[in-house]
Amino acid sequence: MRRAIELAARGVGSTHPNPVVGCVITAADGTPVGEGFHAVAGGPHAEVEALRMAGPRARGGTAYVTLEPCNHTGRTGPCADALIEAGVARVVFAVPDPNRQAAGGGEKLRAKDIRVEQGLLQAEAEAGNQIWLHSVRAGRPFVTWKFATTLDGRSAAPDRTSKWITGPAARADVHRKRAECDAIAVGTQTVLSDDPELTVRDADDVPAARQPLRVVVGDREIPASARVRNDRAATLLLPTHDPAEVLRQLDDRQIRHLWLEGGPTLAAAFLRAGLVDQIVAYVAPAVLGSGFAALGDLGAESIGDLRRFNLTDVTRLGDDVRLTLEPLGGN
Amino acid sequence: MRRAIELAARGVGSTHPNPVVGCVITAADGTPVGEGFHAVAGGPHAEVEALRMAGPRARGGTAYVTLEPCNHTGRTGPCADALIEAGVARVVFAVPDPNRQAAGGGEKLRAKDIRVEQGLLQAEAEAGNQIWLHSVRAGRPFVTWKFATTLDGRSAAPDRTSKWITGPAARADVHRKRAECDAIAVGTQTVLSDDPELTVRDADDVPAARQPLRVVVGDREIPASARVRNDRAATLLLPTHDPAEVLRQLDDRQIRHLWLEGGPTLAAAFLRAGLVDQIVAYVAPAVLGSGFAALGDLGAESIGDLRRFNLTDVTRLGDDVRLTLEPLGGN
Repeated sequence: MRRAIELAARGVGSTHPNPVVGCVITAADGTPVGEGFHAVAGGPHAEVEALRMAGPRARGGTAYVTLEPCNHTGRTGPCADALIEAGVARVVFAVPDPNRQAAGGGEKLRAKDIRVEQGLLQAEAEAGNQIWLHSVRAGRPFVTWKFATTLDGRSAAPDRTSKWITGPAARADVHRKRAECDAIAVGTQTVLSDDPELTVRDADDVPAARQPLRVVVGDREIPASARVRNDRAATLLLPTHDPAEVLRQLDDRQIRHLWLEGGPTLAAAFLRAGLVDQIVAYVAPAVLGSGFAALGDLGAESIGDLRRFNLTDVTRLGDDVRLTLEPLGGN
Repeated sequence: MRRAIELAARGVGSTHPNPVVGCVITAADGTPVGEGFHAVAGGPHAEVEALRMAGPRARGGTAYVTLEPCNHTGRTGPCADALIEAGVARVVFAVPDPNRQAAGGGEKLRAKDIRVEQGLLQAEAEAGNQIWLHSVRAGRPFVTWKFATTLDGRSAAPDRTSKWITGPAARADVHRKRAECDAIAVGTQTVLSDDPELTVRDADDVPAARQPLRVVVGDREIPASARVRNDRAATLLLPTHDPAEVLRQLDDRQIRHLWLEGGPTLAAAFLRAGLVDQIVAYVAPAVLGSGFAALGDLGAESIGDLRRFNLTDVTRLGDDVRLTLEPLGGN
């Protein structure tokens, strides 16, 4: 199963809107004879890849899968059927499928007298699919709020200039993390002030069809010349101020992971609504003393109104430091 | 010499206004026969301690000292004389004494035909005495600006409450670091808002005479009932707004290390004057969205006015993270 989890991780960033999944097949005598992972939506599922490699040696063997085999015909047939046809005697999966549409694979296998076990290394396998599982369970995209800030909490100078607060290593990290998301959202104020392109730029081999969806939230007019309107990625304009409505619209488009880049007003609206699942802050060892705060008003009056998070990671990136925060008590 | 540097470090926080110094004596055949460190101002110097332990075995031997032996009669006699009387044949020191009053020890030893070498492990020995060396070379106290902040740069809520932004581990760290300083400064606004005691509190065995000097900068009236006026430590009121004047007054009192606790106006005045040698920021994984900024106006207009520092240390302290910054290019 540990190998299956490693295999699953190879799909990170390319399986949207599907989960990452890994599978290892052992023959009846326990010898590993096949392995596979889900690489891209519409492509073969991990089980199918592993069964293809195993061929007839799968008969009487065991399939180890990080996620409950699907019982759903989408762009590919149900994996449960493929395992039954291959004649495996036993299926061990780590995480039950929370997706009502695809679940039921375990039941179908049991009905065919295949031994089914679940829960092996479940925590490790869940960690690998954190975003997708959260999204399916909550019925809305997982939201990461990203911002770059000075040590004194400023994201732009008084004249609105902000290039660059953080250094090249932090900015490259942002592009890597954008590439793992399905959509990047900013408010109209950010588009008007900064004219960002909101693409995964450092990866020149990312075609427009694989770029995250660009989402502009708010009802100010966006000029036709704005870079966010160019043809390097798809763009969705959402003339609303309601974060829940934004997430509903994105869920309809099967967006699992939203990368929220701000500005301060949009970030504050999501925080107030309790709709931020992760904060990624790039903190520069620099001070401004004035300018625009990284975060807008949350209605706090007293120190008791402080919104606390768990600090889950601290990483130096060149001259800067990246702090990752998640809600207290987890998602 | 490495052992001498380790010994020197034992004096950190208690030798004020003197440097930390360690010394190892070896006999003529190279056997270590004595060691010592400077523990407290007015007490014996490291060389004298080490010579006492070595006794007659020091004759013909070598003294390894982290700092050039002093040639100055203060509360104790010159160490150079003590080494001459003990009959050592060779003295190796790491760092030349930058203190005009005490220097000249090396010359005096050479005049008595003792072999004198300098520079062994100088960088390591300097690091151990960074604050003291900086203070003597610059002719003013080394200034550390400490602040606690939310991730979005707030040091107090709109109603001025700020207890507590950071957790117990970070607050205990502040007390340990205060204990290594000679003086703690705040502005009058901080005294009026927070009524801090400004003592080293977690170390109950620190008597008033060993507490850092409390310094209140500014010309607002401080009520007699303010905790900063209690008898747990000495207090100096400096009715000025000029950081250079503050440092002059403290240098006259042999303050080597000033711990600047704010608030934002005082910190901004020191930063504008280029008189901050180190920033220690305790960042809580929490956001406020409003309230008082950790730092006051520095006159920045554009992102080019950003004041950058080197990030020299990142340490997790419980739920919080401590970032240490020093000026680009060092002191």
